[in-house]
Amino acid sequence: MHALGRHLLVELHGCHPDLLKKVDAVKDILVGAARACGATIVDVAFHEFNPFGVSGVVVIAESHLSIHTWPEYRYAAVDIFTCGDVIKPEHAVSYVASRFRCKSPSVVEVKRGLIPGQGKVAHKIATEDKVGETIADGAQELSLVH
Amino acid sequence: MHALGRHLLVELHGCHPDLLKKVDAVKDILVGAARACGATIVDVAFHEFNPFGVSGVVVIAESHLSIHTWPEYRYAAVDIFTCGDVIKPEHAVSYVASRFRCKSPSVVEVKRGLIPGQGKVAHKIATEDKVGETIADGAQELSLVH
Repeated sequence: MHALGRHLLVELHGCHPDLLKKVDAVKDILVGAARACGATIVDVAFHEFNPFGVSGVVVIAESHLSIHTWPEYRYAAVDIFTCGDVIKPEHAVSYVASRFRCKSPSVVEVKRGLIPGQGKVAHKIATEDKVGETIADGAQELSLVH
Repeated sequence: MHALGRHLLVELHGCHPDLLKKVDAVKDILVGAARACGATIVDVAFHEFNPFGVSGVVVIAESHLSIHTWPEYRYAAVDIFTCGDVIKPEHAVSYVASRFRCKSPSVVEVKRGLIPGQGKVAHKIATEDKVGETIADGAQELSLVH
């Protein structure tokens, strides 16, 4: 079986609390994590809550990264959901742990979209301007895009 | 121990493929799911990929909902990450399964941010305009906001 996506659920306990409080700082870190693992950023949405804490998402061509912070508990929940062979989500884990000063991140990996068969699984192309070719065993062949 | 968040990882296989292809339709369903479970919507970010497929996120005051669709496999990965006692994420699961015509959704629940102690866990307030009070055992008391 092949998985369409890899989903890393990251628990960051013991972070430096000041780093979890402000939306600009948290956004900078999650965008940096997306770049660190080689993702193609498509959109971002971040919000700061009252009295403090941030929620945010970086939508990538290869799925998404998300974060929710609780500075009062020195904790952040990070999700790194990626597809394809090019992206290295482990790099994003190391990056966020380092930037938030979390010494012992906990990571659970879940395979998403397990598909029977042995063919290479298609990877989406972000925009119509990009050239790409996808091949999926058991599914209709997708066209080459110019 | 108490969890700061509940995270439902939803696998929707066997969906009607046409319902997974277009960004407006998928956005309508995920926004509907957020409303169905009682969430407060803060932001949305949705994108359509080439040749087809949609990725999207609904950021809510209580964390987020996300979706990634693969029409060629009749599959969608949905995540419903919520906090607090008011939201009913199971309603969102039923809603998306019904709207995408998935007869047998698979759901795995993960507790996020397990915190030692017995106090009520704080729930964030979406904006600075809202009145609220949060109490967290083991953390500093947070101020009443007017």
